[in-house]
Amino acid sequence: MADKGITSRTQDFSQWYLDIIERAELAENSAVRGCMVIKPYGYAIWENIQKELDRRIKASGHKNAYFPLLIPKSFFTKEASHVKGFAKECAVVTHYRLKESPDGKGIVVDEDAKLEEELIIRPTSETIIYDTFSRWITSWRDLPMKINQWANIMRWEKRTRPFLRTSEFLWQEGHTVYATEEENIKEVMDMLQMYVDFARDTLAVETYSGRKSESEKFAGAVNTFGVEAMMPDGKSLQFGTSHDLGQNFAKAFDIKFADKDGTVKTPYQNSWGVSTRMMGALIMTHSDDNGLVLPPSVAPIKVVIVPISKDENRDTVMEYCNNIVEELKTEIEEVELDARDFVSPGYKFNEWEKKGVPVRMEIGERDIQNGGVTMVRRDTNEKMFVERSQVLEYTKNLLNEIQNSLLNRSQSIIRNNTHAVESYDGLKTMMKGEKGYAKVYWCGDPKCEESIKAETKATTRCIAEEDVSGKCIYCGKDSKEAWYIAQSY
Amino acid sequence: MADKGITSRTQDFSQWYLDIIERAELAENSAVRGCMVIKPYGYAIWENIQKELDRRIKASGHKNAYFPLLIPKSFFTKEASHVKGFAKECAVVTHYRLKESPDGKGIVVDEDAKLEEELIIRPTSETIIYDTFSRWITSWRDLPMKINQWANIMRWEKRTRPFLRTSEFLWQEGHTVYATEEENIKEVMDMLQMYVDFARDTLAVETYSGRKSESEKFAGAVNTFGVEAMMPDGKSLQFGTSHDLGQNFAKAFDIKFADKDGTVKTPYQNSWGVSTRMMGALIMTHSDDNGLVLPPSVAPIKVVIVPISKDENRDTVMEYCNNIVEELKTEIEEVELDARDFVSPGYKFNEWEKKGVPVRMEIGERDIQNGGVTMVRRDTNEKMFVERSQVLEYTKNLLNEIQNSLLNRSQSIIRNNTHAVESYDGLKTMMKGEKGYAKVYWCGDPKCEESIKAETKATTRCIAEEDVSGKCIYCGKDSKEAWYIAQSY
Repeated sequence: MADKGITSRTQDFSQWYLDIIERAELAENSAVRGCMVIKPYGYAIWENIQKELDRRIKASGHKNAYFPLLIPKSFFTKEASHVKGFAKECAVVTHYRLKESPDGKGIVVDEDAKLEEELIIRPTSETIIYDTFSRWITSWRDLPMKINQWANIMRWEKRTRPFLRTSEFLWQEGHTVYATEEENIKEVMDMLQMYVDFARDTLAVETYSGRKSESEKFAGAVNTFGVEAMMPDGKSLQFGTSHDLGQNFAKAFDIKFADKDGTVKTPYQNSWGVSTRMMGALIMTHSDDNGLVLPPSVAPIKVVIVPISKDENRDTVMEYCNNIVEELKTEIEEVELDARDFVSPGYKFNEWEKKGVPVRMEIGERDIQNGGVTMVRRDTNEKMFVERSQVLEYTKNLLNEIQNSLLNRSQSIIRNNTHAVESYDGLKTMMKGEKGYAKVYWCGDPKCEESIKAETKATTRCIAEEDVSGKCIYCGKDSKEAWYIAQSY
Repeated sequence: MADKGITSRTQDFSQWYLDIIERAELAENSAVRGCMVIKPYGYAIWENIQKELDRRIKASGHKNAYFPLLIPKSFFTKEASHVKGFAKECAVVTHYRLKESPDGKGIVVDEDAKLEEELIIRPTSETIIYDTFSRWITSWRDLPMKINQWANIMRWEKRTRPFLRTSEFLWQEGHTVYATEEENIKEVMDMLQMYVDFARDTLAVETYSGRKSESEKFAGAVNTFGVEAMMPDGKSLQFGTSHDLGQNFAKAFDIKFADKDGTVKTPYQNSWGVSTRMMGALIMTHSDDNGLVLPPSVAPIKVVIVPISKDENRDTVMEYCNNIVEELKTEIEEVELDARDFVSPGYKFNEWEKKGVPVRMEIGERDIQNGGVTMVRRDTNEKMFVERSQVLEYTKNLLNEIQNSLLNRSQSIIRNNTHAVESYDGLKTMMKGEKGYAKVYWCGDPKCEESIKAETKATTRCIAEEDVSGKCIYCGKDSKEAWYIAQSY
């Protein structure tokens, strides 16, 4: 097989990740520092993710809307802890006009067009949305209010990595308002579960989920719940979050409603989101040294057919292939016939392997004579010969099998990388070596958490068990909670 | 019928438009000047528009991708005429950090975090996309390159109107590169036709389309072709544009390809887009003094069922309604049962009328006894009684009929508002009175165009006929082209 220009995963995990993104043509750096271009193949995967998530979000009664990209600076100061978390590394719009340079060379900012109040490109939209909600909500009849937004987000990042951490990224953010605390908390947990289910059923990524610690929670939230996925290098990736905002923002933005009994009350809120960061989890979880591996459920192309022909049998082979495409398309939409005549079949095998197409069919004269097709499944590289009459049925089953098999592998990764650790020395050894999740008792004191982080680079990812008893791995005091801790992305 | 709080269209067209948007809950102004919030009901219409356009764009072989929101200032100066058109009223990012104010009150821009080069929020993406294309394209094998982007756009506007002109808006922009001029021009015309077809088939809006004049073309284009729709107040709305960029940008951004014969050539490009502005055309074309009127093809709710019951027959009525919903949903997805018990049926009729739901069913005990349902079609307000067994079939036909009838009305509007005008006095009278499209001979001299604009507020919208002969309506010189001219949005 030709050289794929992909660094071995075991040799250099970080470079392997970048190589996959480049060779599978998912994304690339742009001329603007920290901002990526999402290339057509990468964007097609994102569209599949978006489509299924959007279906789930709507099915749970949320409606999409769109709020402004720019947020007045003063909005960030309304909720006291929110300002500390978000009003930092932001893109700030200060002017609204350019003019030709007096020296005739190029264009310059027009100093006469300075904004009275600076505008911030949204690093998250709580403030602008809740300012709006304060006008939309007046009565119990307006509740619950269940809104979702698909949008681009900007957080100025120093060190960026495609999909995992970029200054601009794409996401969805749900924003919901309830009359009662109980309903609100139920929703926080329901949306957390939606992310867990989506990761498992669609991305074939198994996760842990649960409450985050005080130091890891969203700025302005009462509680944050996170979904965490284990990457093959033993680091945890925060996949998504669901925030119980309590009444913090409602008070700051003066959201009130007249209840059925006529009294004016302050409602409860939550917000929840996932972003193009999920693409990073998807890539790292399944791919190998030959390139990207995709679960069929999000693959832009599920089956690719590569004809192998010479001038003299070209028509026969193409007719056979076209016939198969036609049959497959009756039940599988994402089928591609690679009919390019300026690259060799070997080049094509290589390309579709790098791009992670789940099933590849190689069809030449010999396959036709033998009355079938040669199939290669991407996840195992297993090659098989399938009789012509069985092709459709076999392919459908194979796609299911690949989806399940990738999930099983992800479940093994998270299981095999989770260890109950009882001594602090054990934790230090683990975090220097294979890493993974250490399930430990922690007393809840932020000082212990901070010391663990400083000494092992591992942080609390989410709570593992409540109402248990043990001794804090750091200070040895009584602890009633077990936590997953890990190094993270 | 209760007062709908909508100004009469004939009394004040402009206020009528704003009232419709408010009462149908489509959009509202935000705290950021010139930026709107697109409310859930308005956004649901936009999603339907997007879905159908995206289908058409993909069917014609284009792939979606995503490019950065921010563009380096220097990119705008690369194409000489582009800079004049676009590097003006833009949102300029100058800093990337905020910090707490030294006086402890609020937050201020951190002057230490000043960007070396300012970044502009995209007013259109030619420059950043073509900078990328210069790396993507090296060989004839890379062509044609057919890319589309769905994105938010920012152009600082002084006078804004929801959907029609806002500082931030949503759009799609197609960007295509071809090896030859012929292929390129074919695509320019194909995409223009796609917009015409989409307007007609989906939005039920009839349009004119054709080449625009030099003064009206896109900054940096060789030629711009526009789609124009006639609004009921006699003004034309530019619905979409398709630009033949020739080699202008390819030269400016150094896009080159090695052709089959080994020589290095400069390719040809085009770009084309439509935006949330289409929502303005949709609203103005079909609505009336009772509120929004929507063609079924983009209506988030196609059929609404309002039960009319009292405590004693509530169960019977609801069962009858639920049964109908179930049957309708087998073929029509967008059916809503308005089961709210805290507002009256009259309130509901009023609300769904304002929101433009094409078919309303009113179902009370009398309807049940008579073995059917009462239906009201929104476009004509006609009321009819339909037998229970006919409900599904009748509804499907009625939705088709409404769609066709709205298109017929739009075709009448454009036809009845187009007049061949031969004298300049006639043109002045027309533009002071009923307005509409004047089909006139124009010699092509920009001075005549400018004078006509100054004196009648009418501009050339697009060419009506080529290779004809007549006398220029302004200067009387020989003219070989007839143009549609009108006042415009």
